[in-house]
Amino acid sequence: MSAHLTILGYNSAIPTVNSSPTAQFLEMEERHFLIDCGEGTQVQLRKAKARFSKINHIFISHLHGDHCFGLPGLIASFRLLGRETPIHIYGPKGIQEMLETIFRLTDTHKGFEVVYHELDSKKSEVIYEDSRIEVSTIPLDHRVYCNGYLFREKPKDRHLNMAEISKYPEIETCDYHNLKRGKDFVLSDGYVLKNETLTNDPTKSVSYAFCSDTRYLESIVPIIEGVDVLYHEATFLHDLKKMADYTGHTTALEAARIARKAGVGKLILGHFSNRYHDLSVFTKEAREVFAETYLPVALQPVEIK
Amino acid sequence: MSAHLTILGYNSAIPTVNSSPTAQFLEMEERHFLIDCGEGTQVQLRKAKARFSKINHIFISHLHGDHCFGLPGLIASFRLLGRETPIHIYGPKGIQEMLETIFRLTDTHKGFEVVYHELDSKKSEVIYEDSRIEVSTIPLDHRVYCNGYLFREKPKDRHLNMAEISKYPEIETCDYHNLKRGKDFVLSDGYVLKNETLTNDPTKSVSYAFCSDTRYLESIVPIIEGVDVLYHEATFLHDLKKMADYTGHTTALEAARIARKAGVGKLILGHFSNRYHDLSVFTKEAREVFAETYLPVALQPVEIK
Repeated sequence: MSAHLTILGYNSAIPTVNSSPTAQFLEMEERHFLIDCGEGTQVQLRKAKARFSKINHIFISHLHGDHCFGLPGLIASFRLLGRETPIHIYGPKGIQEMLETIFRLTDTHKGFEVVYHELDSKKSEVIYEDSRIEVSTIPLDHRVYCNGYLFREKPKDRHLNMAEISKYPEIETCDYHNLKRGKDFVLSDGYVLKNETLTNDPTKSVSYAFCSDTRYLESIVPIIEGVDVLYHEATFLHDLKKMADYTGHTTALEAARIARKAGVGKLILGHFSNRYHDLSVFTKEAREVFAETYLPVALQPVEIK
Repeated sequence: MSAHLTILGYNSAIPTVNSSPTAQFLEMEERHFLIDCGEGTQVQLRKAKARFSKINHIFISHLHGDHCFGLPGLIASFRLLGRETPIHIYGPKGIQEMLETIFRLTDTHKGFEVVYHELDSKKSEVIYEDSRIEVSTIPLDHRVYCNGYLFREKPKDRHLNMAEISKYPEIETCDYHNLKRGKDFVLSDGYVLKNETLTNDPTKSVSYAFCSDTRYLESIVPIIEGVDVLYHEATFLHDLKKMADYTGHTTALEAARIARKAGVGKLILGHFSNRYHDLSVFTKEAREVFAETYLPVALQPVEIK
């Protein structure tokens, strides 16, 4: 399984006719994650042909409207579509009060459990983990409490080298599990078959870092080091650095500096201020520092590799 | 000034790629009213090229998500667009708690006043009035407290018949006001000039009734009697009458009966269940009872006359 990121919306503040506020759909190891949920996200999910029922985990970076106003409608639609499985929502303290107040006053009987995971730590922490994936917070510096999220595939099983294995009748199917995990095989005469002779390297585990609204923040570099794809906000160009600082945002140049320092594979910019119409100015500025910088393309899945 | 209704969205429950939940933009006597505000309404307003700053009054029928989930985002956008004038919101008790909770938790500093007019009466009442317009509630019967809204232009000034007036030098400009209001003119010799010889009938005052989610309800007939345009929900066809009753909705046939009993000029149906794809079945059923029945056309202004 490869990992795919579909950016559903990436504009800042105000939705327009042709662009949507922040929301992303991440498929990784057959898990389906929604990251942020601005107004209109459920329609963008439909356009992306994403199956609502597959989403079990929603990660909200911060409680500004352009990152969360699509949540009540999405949850209400889950109900109307007959959902029964729980939905897990990760986000800042307060998200539960907001949603439950809305659900109570709008008579939204959910029919399935909404499990809230409210966050208030200022340190990076693992907030989700299963056999294949780990999700950690990336504490950011915005006007309100805000986290980015780091999605990492765990190390994968080594591939069995069947041509080699078949030479040893002693190795049975039930031994494959240990081989995939890297263990050597000891023959009955005590001879040790080194794992690397029986298996090949595993498929690379990929990682994706989502860095929502934040000021330039070098403390995130060790957390996101070496990720395959980094989405980082770049609300302004660097000539508006003061405005960026004041409003709690980053410039394209700064986002590129973060990408370079962290040695990421690829940088995708987003959350551009509505004052810019030709978005190529962002990549132009950022590529001076980090060549592998790209603009987001809504609804077009990007393979993370 | 004529009155124009722009239906921004009319589908029920779940927004889709091609249709939006309930919201309408009504221009009447240079007032600009928003009626209901499902998710995505602000984008629909942009598509309709409506100027956000002109909207000073928002009327919400009931607190189901498909009629109000667009409000938080719209208010937040008002702020980002620099609004300073107050916005008046009319809706069921609870709307203030819902919106203020959201604004507090999402750090939405409004910068302008939001004036709440919470409704809980089960009788029709005038909730807005100025020199030219009157808005009343139309109590409906849904699963939750719900009102339709009746918008009425007040009787207009009579038109001056200048050809006739100019024959009497005694009539001065300052007398025109009384003439327009229908008063006779008394000449200095005591001779009474009847108003109808000096003026012509005023332009007809128009009216529009918005009847959101409701069961078939004959008690609304006297309230909406003779309106020029009636929008009435018709979620189901009449073969699903039991389903309509159970869910608090009306059938197309029933909406047509209401229109006929009330002697309205024109009926526009809406709020169709997503189970119907060919909407012409609704007008087909309704026209058997009330010929002047039409389907809504999103974003296409309808003149109310």
